[in-house]
Amino acid sequence: MNDRYFSPDPAQRQIARGLYESVKGLPLLCPHGHVDPRLFADPYYRFGSPVDLFIIPDHYIFRMMMSQGVSLESLGIRRKDHQPVESDHRKIWQTICDHWQVMRGTPTAIWLRDELREVFGIDLKLNSANAQTIYSQIEERLTQPDFRPRRLFERFNIEVLATTDAATDTLAHHQAIRDSGWGGRVIPTFRPDAVINLDTENWVGHIEQLSAVSGVAITDYPSYVRALEQRREFFRSMGAVASDHAAASAYTESLSQRDAKAIFQRGLKGEATAEDAARFTGHMLIEMARMSSEDGLVMQLHIGSYRNHNPAVFQRFGRDMGADIPVASEFTYNLKPLLDRFGNQPGLTLILFTLDESTYGRELAPLAGHYPILRLGPPWWFFDSLMGMRRYFDSVMETAGLYNTAGFNDDTRAYISIPARHDVWRRAAADWLAGLLCRQMIDEEDAYAMMADMAYHLAKTTYKIENA
Amino acid sequence: MNDRYFSPDPAQRQIARGLYESVKGLPLLCPHGHVDPRLFADPYYRFGSPVDLFIIPDHYIFRMMMSQGVSLESLGIRRKDHQPVESDHRKIWQTICDHWQVMRGTPTAIWLRDELREVFGIDLKLNSANAQTIYSQIEERLTQPDFRPRRLFERFNIEVLATTDAATDTLAHHQAIRDSGWGGRVIPTFRPDAVINLDTENWVGHIEQLSAVSGVAITDYPSYVRALEQRREFFRSMGAVASDHAAASAYTESLSQRDAKAIFQRGLKGEATAEDAARFTGHMLIEMARMSSEDGLVMQLHIGSYRNHNPAVFQRFGRDMGADIPVASEFTYNLKPLLDRFGNQPGLTLILFTLDESTYGRELAPLAGHYPILRLGPPWWFFDSLMGMRRYFDSVMETAGLYNTAGFNDDTRAYISIPARHDVWRRAAADWLAGLLCRQMIDEEDAYAMMADMAYHLAKTTYKIENA
Amino acid sequence: MNDRYFSPDPAQRQIARGLYESVKGLPLLCPHGHVDPRLFADPYYRFGSPVDLFIIPDHYIFRMMMSQGVSLESLGIRRKDHQPVESDHRKIWQTICDHWQVMRGTPTAIWLRDELREVFGIDLKLNSANAQTIYSQIEERLTQPDFRPRRLFERFNIEVLATTDAATDTLAHHQAIRDSGWGGRVIPTFRPDAVINLDTENWVGHIEQLSAVSGVAITDYPSYVRALEQRREFFRSMGAVASDHAAASAYTESLSQRDAKAIFQRGLKGEATAEDAARFTGHMLIEMARMSSEDGLVMQLHIGSYRNHNPAVFQRFGRDMGADIPVASEFTYNLKPLLDRFGNQPGLTLILFTLDESTYGRELAPLAGHYPILRLGPPWWFFDSLMGMRRYFDSVMETAGLYNTAGFNDDTRAYISIPARHDVWRRAAADWLAGLLCRQMIDEEDAYAMMADMAYHLAKTTYKIENA
Repeated sequence: MNDRYFSPDPAQRQIARGLYESVKGLPLLCPHGHVDPRLFADPYYRFGSPVDLFIIPDHYIFRMMMSQGVSLESLGIRRKDHQPVESDHRKIWQTICDHWQVMRGTPTAIWLRDELREVFGIDLKLNSANAQTIYSQIEERLTQPDFRPRRLFERFNIEVLATTDAATDTLAHHQAIRDSGWGGRVIPTFRPDAVINLDTENWVGHIEQLSAVSGVAITDYPSYVRALEQRREFFRSMGAVASDHAAASAYTESLSQRDAKAIFQRGLKGEATAEDAARFTGHMLIEMARMSSEDGLVMQLHIGSYRNHNPAVFQRFGRDMGADIPVASEFTYNLKPLLDRFGNQPGLTLILFTLDESTYGRELAPLAGHYPILRLGPPWWFFDSLMGMRRYFDSVMETAGLYNTAGFNDDTRAYISIPARHDVWRRAAADWLAGLLCRQMIDEEDAYAMMADMAYHLAKTTYKIENA
Repeated sequence: MNDRYFSPDPAQRQIARGLYESVKGLPLLCPHGHVDPRLFADPYYRFGSPVDLFIIPDHYIFRMMMSQGVSLESLGIRRKDHQPVESDHRKIWQTICDHWQVMRGTPTAIWLRDELREVFGIDLKLNSANAQTIYSQIEERLTQPDFRPRRLFERFNIEVLATTDAATDTLAHHQAIRDSGWGGRVIPTFRPDAVINLDTENWVGHIEQLSAVSGVAITDYPSYVRALEQRREFFRSMGAVASDHAAASAYTESLSQRDAKAIFQRGLKGEATAEDAARFTGHMLIEMARMSSEDGLVMQLHIGSYRNHNPAVFQRFGRDMGADIPVASEFTYNLKPLLDRFGNQPGLTLILFTLDESTYGRELAPLAGHYPILRLGPPWWFFDSLMGMRRYFDSVMETAGLYNTAGFNDDTRAYISIPARHDVWRRAAADWLAGLLCRQMIDEEDAYAMMADMAYHLAKTTYKIENA
Repeated sequence: MNDRYFSPDPAQRQIARGLYESVKGLPLLCPHGHVDPRLFADPYYRFGSPVDLFIIPDHYIFRMMMSQGVSLESLGIRRKDHQPVESDHRKIWQTICDHWQVMRGTPTAIWLRDELREVFGIDLKLNSANAQTIYSQIEERLTQPDFRPRRLFERFNIEVLATTDAATDTLAHHQAIRDSGWGGRVIPTFRPDAVINLDTENWVGHIEQLSAVSGVAITDYPSYVRALEQRREFFRSMGAVASDHAAASAYTESLSQRDAKAIFQRGLKGEATAEDAARFTGHMLIEMARMSSEDGLVMQLHIGSYRNHNPAVFQRFGRDMGADIPVASEFTYNLKPLLDRFGNQPGLTLILFTLDESTYGRELAPLAGHYPILRLGPPWWFFDSLMGMRRYFDSVMETAGLYNTAGFNDDTRAYISIPARHDVWRRAAADWLAGLLCRQMIDEEDAYAMMADMAYHLAKTTYKIENA
């Protein structure tokens, strides 16, 4: 499997292998992701069963199973109404393995294969016959101290791992990690969506929480802004280097103070309209850019997902159940108000992520190839795959230039999958660069420098990660 | 020509060849297309001239000729005003051959080359010099009993061929086929566009026909629905496994009974607005999903063509003259009302087809990778080509998963071209899978299983085609 | 570097090389571009410094430098407020070379490398260490008579070079070229944007200029139309074969005479709204098609750029500063009014250019594969790159057919880069055709004919360029 993911052409493959090997020893930078900090707060943390580890938190897997008629209940996904679901993890694992062929050719199948082999030393493909054997093997490994999260952190050679945390989070787990004296760098990321998007379920409750946790009595728009500033400062003091923002669209708008105040008040009274919410979010994105230009947090913007598209699934199981579907996105018009104010701001960095690949070459690469504050994030979510990366390299790099991209994010909840995901990126990058070199679009010096930048340095400089 | 359409890389090519050969013997499944059932109703049916066979029914050919300044009249296309057009078929054939170089690199050129060679045993490229020779050779072949449609059906190894038939069709030809005792499975498909889309020319006339043929006196919306249900039942009794629906957009909306009734009445009075028509179609798509969930017909949705874009051509020659132009399409919002009601319905299958490739990765693959009822149809129309298939595989498969796709449709009026079209698909699939295998994204077991699924099984299970 | 840009596969590469060599001797046709005719009016014209030649006119370079935090002032870009900017060209050159690594893998880096090597005989990659050496070498070359524009014209083997000129231009430089008796064919192109788009800065001033230069007193819409017709006639008499039109969208609309007159009057009074401007441009595009159908000028339409997106840059440095960002485009609906009137007009040619690649396969290829007047222009601007060409070939050719495309345009201000740009196109075309031949989608006869057509004949016939 040494040459996996490389082009079959022997010349290109040989170059790709050399490039890949040149970065093999570089540590992993994980500046954006969704791993639970709890894993590191407790030095003796143990993963549960193989199902707890691989299946229940992985919406890539259960969305596909559901699409093929396997019920979420049979996979042990908890129901909001507390009706019973399958609780026999060996049975769930068997169900997964019985249907594993539906994953053929997907990134999930590739990651899992690589995880089993590289992390667990299990070189088998899931199927009905070997399901229980594999289950036992994983279960056995998970009892070993070497499979505690902190040990794996070292084995994975992770230099920095950023989690994603609500603005109202007390960061207690992060505090515990710091207090423990363990050397792993696990840092929080400021994600204020729930207090910014007026149409969040129970937004007023989130504001009350924000008030409580910040110690700022939020009675109006100015005190709300102060509370956010206070939280950002707290996150920074806890090591955060970035904020993260998700929105249905990239719409931005500079509201007058008067309008901002009025909409905020309507929000507090539960009277905000959908238009209010969209405008307020658009306004707060500009406010976040303003704060970032002052406090230095790198700003990330994830755009274009219609969340919880399937009401039956949402009602029964809640959010993040594989039912988020992308929509067409627009950046050139939508980001203009933000860019008009901060597009040329020294020291500010805004990283854009899209789920609409037609925006890569049309809008994002030209924007990033012009505005000093912009960087393009790596292929996100459905596009975090070998083909997704190839399309990204092909559509983005000539126009944006490599140095206006942000390197790689694994963006995962699945801690165990981190090395596999970085490996796909590094191999995809090596193969792409080998193709450029074979075609003499770059020379060898360029290729090796670009390889190291893609594997490591771009993420480090973009996210302003200092050396330890 | 044994390795045609395969990658030039020797390793990938060898694997592709092996995969392709593994499915060579599998029969062709043709679950969606536009072949005239008349061909099979008469056991002695004879094709007309080479021009009748290859040129006059093929809008791929005459659109391209027209775009290069060749008049449709000179190609023998009938005018609506009955003005004379070229009727000398040898002269028409010569005109085509004189301009054949404009087809270079198009799927049409490839299909025709393969048809001539594989079906007619003529291994020549059309040009001015050999035009008349080739004409004579084809003409001669067509007189032979081996070139009757039923004989070719057997020679082509077609397991099932579905036609596409108006809701008001009596299916007399299908009845004749059944009565004849011939073993070929030719089945109808229920296509009710003309009685559903209020803006169809002479919609009221179509409703009257529907009334007559169903025996249900259609006076209002409920009787209209009953008539449709009756026709579906009749189609099913004649072997139909699917319905088919074409619309400009994927817009769906659940009308109240009251609104549905009111719009229907406005339609009968010829007073329906464009908005009425769009809403009614959107509503009836949901009704069709409801009926499918009851009677089991697989539902197909073909979206995104602006029909009869060229008014001069439409006025002079009518519809289906190569003047249909795609428009940008949207599925995430548009399909939501339908999916809210039936997206998780056991036993229901809805196959989506698009002419907007930007929807592949952005909307269709994520939708199909989540909703149990959804399958993605193969690349359609302009994208039914080698490159179209490669883009489809690359953009769709990682996210949707192969098993949420529907295999291949030839979707053709050109009966003779069926084997060539399936051959392109099988070769494209073999080459794609060989690429995955070379890159170790799948293993050999996967590759061979996926190959058989793409060539045969996916179409069979998606369209619920039972063994004979 | 003989095989640069070709596929690494040895079989494909060998075929590509043969195809490329078969067209090496063919002259360059440059039917659309932005070279200053002044270069050829003065037989002793001398380029300024290496910075004047390579940096200051090249927004591809300084946009990328700016995106990486290099100020435009430090690159010597003139400010509108006449504040001082860097004027030491050796220092500017050093700055560029110090940052040259940010251009890795971009078309600009490739063009510059090829220009230095092929035109200047300098086979070095720019970097901090050799910056001054290279500067000196270029500077030295530029003093030689062989580096005068006319000599290079012959050395580049340019058959025809079209400039792009305002409708109000007196074409004095073109007249001087003609008067000089020099044999190089440099022809103007009629570009009336500034007198057509009502929202052009100082539109009334442009109309006054049009009045003066045409000798037609423009008092109303009919006299305005007459003045335009007069200018077209003048351009034709000076050798023009084409007009060129840029617009934010492809929107067209046939205004009534009454509406056209009223909007025109509002424009003269400075009272036209944004909607007026959009409708008037849409109307005038149809008028231009009407005039083209009478006077034979080939019509070019460049669609989809949001000009001067960065207000700070626009205010400080003016237009064309690398701050033009594409937007999503639409052709099927927008062009219909124009096509309804002129889509089938014998003798008329309309060439379409897009910055939205999602329109290639969805709208443009189907339109061009049907309407006799349409041709697709080559990949434009950000997409004039090796990958941009590959995506264009893959998305366009099967549906549009090669013969509904317009060959290559270099579309450059950078005279020195012309051979390098054509070379990339010819190599990309050779490699694409070699791929088709390897896959047996075309035969050798086709491949060689298509190669010559792509390198030379398509541009010649599309732009109706007569032999000298």
